[in-house]
Amino acid sequence: MTTFDTIAPNLDRQSIELPSWAFGNSGTRFRVFTTPGTPRDPFEKIADAAQVHRHTGLAPSVALHIPWDKVDDYAALCAHAEDHGVTLGTINSNTFQDEEYKFGSLAATDAKVRQRAIDHHFDCIDIMHATGSRDLKIWLADGTNYPGQDDMRRRQDHLAESLATIYARLGDEHRLVLEYKFFEPAFYHTDVPDWGTAYAQVTALGDKAMVCLDTGHHAPGTNIEFIVMQLLRLGKLGSFDFNSRFYADDDLIVGAADPFQLFRIMVEVVRGGAYDEGSEVAFMLDQCHNIEEKIPGQMRSVLNVQEMTARALLIDREALDAAQRENDVLAANAIMMDAFYTDVRTPLAEWRESRGLPADPLATYAASGYRERIVAERVGGQQAGWNA
Amino acid sequence: MTTFDTIAPNLDRQSIELPSWAFGNSGTRFRVFTTPGTPRDPFEKIADAAQVHRHTGLAPSVALHIPWDKVDDYAALCAHAEDHGVTLGTINSNTFQDEEYKFGSLAATDAKVRQRAIDHHFDCIDIMHATGSRDLKIWLADGTNYPGQDDMRRRQDHLAESLATIYARLGDEHRLVLEYKFFEPAFYHTDVPDWGTAYAQVTALGDKAMVCLDTGHHAPGTNIEFIVMQLLRLGKLGSFDFNSRFYADDDLIVGAADPFQLFRIMVEVVRGGAYDEGSEVAFMLDQCHNIEEKIPGQMRSVLNVQEMTARALLIDREALDAAQRENDVLAANAIMMDAFYTDVRTPLAEWRESRGLPADPLATYAASGYRERIVAERVGGQQAGWNA
Amino acid sequence: MTTFDTIAPNLDRQSIELPSWAFGNSGTRFRVFTTPGTPRDPFEKIADAAQVHRHTGLAPSVALHIPWDKVDDYAALCAHAEDHGVTLGTINSNTFQDEEYKFGSLAATDAKVRQRAIDHHFDCIDIMHATGSRDLKIWLADGTNYPGQDDMRRRQDHLAESLATIYARLGDEHRLVLEYKFFEPAFYHTDVPDWGTAYAQVTALGDKAMVCLDTGHHAPGTNIEFIVMQLLRLGKLGSFDFNSRFYADDDLIVGAADPFQLFRIMVEVVRGGAYDEGSEVAFMLDQCHNIEEKIPGQMRSVLNVQEMTARALLIDREALDAAQRENDVLAANAIMMDAFYTDVRTPLAEWRESRGLPADPLATYAASGYRERIVAERVGGQQAGWNA
Amino acid sequence: MTTFDTIAPNLDRQSIELPSWAFGNSGTRFRVFTTPGTPRDPFEKIADAAQVHRHTGLAPSVALHIPWDKVDDYAALCAHAEDHGVTLGTINSNTFQDEEYKFGSLAATDAKVRQRAIDHHFDCIDIMHATGSRDLKIWLADGTNYPGQDDMRRRQDHLAESLATIYARLGDEHRLVLEYKFFEPAFYHTDVPDWGTAYAQVTALGDKAMVCLDTGHHAPGTNIEFIVMQLLRLGKLGSFDFNSRFYADDDLIVGAADPFQLFRIMVEVVRGGAYDEGSEVAFMLDQCHNIEEKIPGQMRSVLNVQEMTARALLIDREALDAAQRENDVLAANAIMMDAFYTDVRTPLAEWRESRGLPADPLATYAASGYRERIVAERVGGQQAGWNA
Repeated sequence: MTTFDTIAPNLDRQSIELPSWAFGNSGTRFRVFTTPGTPRDPFEKIADAAQVHRHTGLAPSVALHIPWDKVDDYAALCAHAEDHGVTLGTINSNTFQDEEYKFGSLAATDAKVRQRAIDHHFDCIDIMHATGSRDLKIWLADGTNYPGQDDMRRRQDHLAESLATIYARLGDEHRLVLEYKFFEPAFYHTDVPDWGTAYAQVTALGDKAMVCLDTGHHAPGTNIEFIVMQLLRLGKLGSFDFNSRFYADDDLIVGAADPFQLFRIMVEVVRGGAYDEGSEVAFMLDQCHNIEEKIPGQMRSVLNVQEMTARALLIDREALDAAQRENDVLAANAIMMDAFYTDVRTPLAEWRESRGLPADPLATYAASGYRERIVAERVGGQQAGWNA
Repeated sequence: MTTFDTIAPNLDRQSIELPSWAFGNSGTRFRVFTTPGTPRDPFEKIADAAQVHRHTGLAPSVALHIPWDKVDDYAALCAHAEDHGVTLGTINSNTFQDEEYKFGSLAATDAKVRQRAIDHHFDCIDIMHATGSRDLKIWLADGTNYPGQDDMRRRQDHLAESLATIYARLGDEHRLVLEYKFFEPAFYHTDVPDWGTAYAQVTALGDKAMVCLDTGHHAPGTNIEFIVMQLLRLGKLGSFDFNSRFYADDDLIVGAADPFQLFRIMVEVVRGGAYDEGSEVAFMLDQCHNIEEKIPGQMRSVLNVQEMTARALLIDREALDAAQRENDVLAANAIMMDAFYTDVRTPLAEWRESRGLPADPLATYAASGYRERIVAERVGGQQAGWNA
Repeated sequence: MTTFDTIAPNLDRQSIELPSWAFGNSGTRFRVFTTPGTPRDPFEKIADAAQVHRHTGLAPSVALHIPWDKVDDYAALCAHAEDHGVTLGTINSNTFQDEEYKFGSLAATDAKVRQRAIDHHFDCIDIMHATGSRDLKIWLADGTNYPGQDDMRRRQDHLAESLATIYARLGDEHRLVLEYKFFEPAFYHTDVPDWGTAYAQVTALGDKAMVCLDTGHHAPGTNIEFIVMQLLRLGKLGSFDFNSRFYADDDLIVGAADPFQLFRIMVEVVRGGAYDEGSEVAFMLDQCHNIEEKIPGQMRSVLNVQEMTARALLIDREALDAAQRENDVLAANAIMMDAFYTDVRTPLAEWRESRGLPADPLATYAASGYRERIVAERVGGQQAGWNA
Repeated sequence: MTTFDTIAPNLDRQSIELPSWAFGNSGTRFRVFTTPGTPRDPFEKIADAAQVHRHTGLAPSVALHIPWDKVDDYAALCAHAEDHGVTLGTINSNTFQDEEYKFGSLAATDAKVRQRAIDHHFDCIDIMHATGSRDLKIWLADGTNYPGQDDMRRRQDHLAESLATIYARLGDEHRLVLEYKFFEPAFYHTDVPDWGTAYAQVTALGDKAMVCLDTGHHAPGTNIEFIVMQLLRLGKLGSFDFNSRFYADDDLIVGAADPFQLFRIMVEVVRGGAYDEGSEVAFMLDQCHNIEEKIPGQMRSVLNVQEMTARALLIDREALDAAQRENDVLAANAIMMDAFYTDVRTPLAEWRESRGLPADPLATYAASGYRERIVAERVGGQQAGWNA
């Protein structure tokens, strides 16, 4: 039997990176609703992100999105983050919001467009040097809407070429992390639709290129934990973008739609060594709080990851292994479910208190007056969103 | 054997309504790309829609979206349409773009919000009197993103109540047409997710309430032509919103993603009498031309509907019936496929010419200089889109 | 706050019907694996089912499948059941295993085939009189594999006619419960594919006709609890067939694939009054234990239903209602999740002990020697399965 | 413009392999219906397969399934095939129908089971030497039904080891072709669920290991032609298993469910060189004629592949390339659609006649009396099916 006390020390090394854009407004093609107090610039986003870490102890770094988080002085942004108790993390490129990218970016047929997109990634690498970031994360909106619109094979070759050019520019300490996505915004084909394509592309690049698995970017019914297992086995899982979905890429709070799936993913994370001391797998969120409060939404998300990590660690691996080797289907499944159904919330509250953190982060945040303060202070200006 | 000559006269009664919003810009949550020459107001949209009818003879009416197409003087808009050889059609309400509708509209828990949404529909009915429209089409973005967020049962009752209030306000010649949608923008539940719900709601209202079937609003794998058959059988199919999709509600050109599905739908349309003389089923498009030219995109769509209608009419019904009664699976299927694989494009070009229409509508439009003219003229102002 | 003590008495009225066929062999088109000790006749199936009830107190009745469970003397079967502490429940008809049904049964185009299927249902009603069953459950394999193979509209009308004939034969105390299924074994269309069709068909029959919701019979991504809500609201939810699935109609142990979905379903069951004293909604299992032990597989299933019922009852309805009315998305969702994450297993073990049941039903069963006994005794003969 | 005359010579090299098992009975877990005249042994299956080739000229070889097609004397079987104008092709292994394989075969945790499965493949390689077959095709039913049932990572390593052992045994002229499948008969995970896994596994083996793409083995909505493109680009597409599906692995007649998808696949086949002179990509069918006549069902399938190949060849590649380079979405798509909508049936009938084949293969077969003859002759014995 594995007890909470045994696993508690392992929880200390958990670190989940927050996306700066989760604190800005987001929505659907139908409407982006606004919220009072929404940040107007990267500094305010980082201040909000720091609140999540302050109350949970789980989120010490913040990922940036370029150009949304472009600033004149990255040293100042670093210092600002440090002042707030967090650091800057992954740099995410963006090649989907200029008119020039209407028909693609790194995979586009037009060489000028590809060069523009490559140059943007060079800028991102410059920023990585300034921020001390390790990972350059590339998600591409590239694809087509109609059969025949473009040549998928040629695009794949162009993509390989563009990525190689970017890869060659990376610093020694950098990694390139390529994210795949089933569909949206392209509706017929995307140029990196599945883990197989991302794997083939990054394998061709070299050791510093890895795959990013966004939990919302798969076909209906896909067994995501299998992919986690496989990418870890192949040594190519670079990072996670955590979120949840009922239908498409809904970008809901992690664990909200299918908590059992999140558990199974964390089980494979632990099984495959991605949670071991020294693991280089990055755990990030990527979400949209379209209608709910953003800061507590992020808190809820990192707490959900922590709870499921605790449950995954609680699995009695020896008993499980024995049941598996005997093909005792019900016993093996029961050992999994036993960990899943264990209520870890009270021991986690105690764990938090023992580390000087609030037992109930959401209540403490709500009582802190932070929300009221930003609502009062952040008046005027342009609320940050996917377009800024 | 059914020949093209036999069915040609039946093609004369085809009439497909265009959505005014297809001529404005549209996109995804990631980006709305712009196009030179995009209309800036309802008058320009109607002018563009009239081009589709001019070259195809298939699209004599235009649906409006309120408030996007609100004008001070509907008589002027009617006259403008008439001048361009088209009429105004269905009025589409919109309860998803005000901050007040963040948590729903006709199904919202807040009574004030519901009243606001009901009042908007009263406005729409007033406009219907001014435009001479028959149909009030209601698609609701109502739903929730998280389990527990709201009480689905209470919302359903509220929806029934709101719809009844609106229904009571209809003129004698009016119809209320309720559209269902599987998901988006709501990501956990939508208040009218399926035809069953729409059917139950409109049945409770009365004879003037019908269901609208949007071909992109179903779960993956759904047999849509079955629903067409069933709604026709139940006497409750009010209208179609035609488009196509590979994944979710992609809103692609009709027939672009799965032409065989469009054919099967038209087969049930014909089978169920919805294409008969005097049928009251409305055939509309609902699409987004995110990256392609809008006017030719609409032309392509209505031509696709026409071609599939011709193929559906070409089915040798007697032979099919005989094969079906003998359970000759291959023969029956072959009769369907024979119609589907028949190339109707040349006889349709001749049909057009015999009616004074261009043999090749897209080429004639391209040669007409209309596109160049609107690009030159429509400078300045705000291009119409989903927000205006 | 709702506590376990408050809800404990409500658990006493829980009653889940077991399917006799779950104790026979089942499998896929690729292979039906056998298990030592598998019953060879309905008497042995009932003996096995009684074991589930003995150890859990949750499963006092057994559904029969005709002709698989046909016997010469139903009084003897009733007495046998009574001897084992259970009763006979729903009668399930079967019109998919005779050569005559190759192209359908109640919806077939061939009138002789329809009559044969109707007669089979008359036989089932006779058996219901003999067994004292209330419900005649009808699931149909009817459908087609190829577009055009048959006329879906005509089949729907034939189905209505066949059902009306069967309905007219029901006793006063009987109900007809119609089950829908998305696909399989038919691969193009099924004649009752969705709840809307089942609802329209049973509404046309009358008050004694209801819908059966099998949790594995929906399109990918379908919000099943919404359908539960809607059918309860419309007064037409007759019964559940519980199981779980990752992909299609996998017929896995209830709650195994998506425990959170099972919870959400039970929340709507409670919300809609289907768990109230006097509710006539029947709760049944319908599963296939292809590779796992069957008796403990059924135990696991009923215990999962019980655990989720307890969690659903634990929801703080007042607090939930308040949060919902304030549109506090995160608070409302948290109240749901709080109940879901509550570990009810220890209080349920105590609840069992307080009622003279074993704290750990699976362990007690394993220790009982029953399995060893049936393995030793049931030698020779033909193991029961889907074909017998 | 590409004309039929230009492409006609390219059609001469088309060769589609038939699966022997398509001529035996097949069905679903619910029922396997029988058909008069169904073969009782491999010799009769080959005779039936030869009929398809005789009338279409498209299917000169037959794939065998071991042990279903095990015979004492393969030389005799070869001679029998030759007498009937066909040859023996791919050897398909089968590790899903023995009790020993209940929990897997090449990926099983039990070493004895793995060895048994490896030995079976050694037998298959022996048969390949006897039949002169090039390809050993491996599809595995391996997987689990419940989370935790077995260790997916360990299984993947075991699979790699088993495959390596088999690979080492191949003759110089042999290839190992690994097929992936999304789900079924396993319902939680399969050990080779996607092309990425198959690609990673065969890449680890060496140059003689390739991937088999079965068109029915993907998640809903998957863009299959993208995978065709990618595997060809990576040099790892070994063979196709053609069939079609509306829902899961329905194994319907090729092109029956989505003819446009079949077209798009053939477009990528041609684009990627897989149809070039000297291509080593194998084109096979894998289908189940559950309710339709089997020989004409196979004819319909190969004719559908031929028709779509002709359409794919008809694409005006130069014009397409030009439109793509100009990002003219509608023009590029129209060029694709123009080829798709071209009715190639009459020229193909002429092509057939010019090669001494019947203009209408299905009619000629029906008139040949072959069906009546086998119905009369094949009386008694056991009809072949998935179990024999």
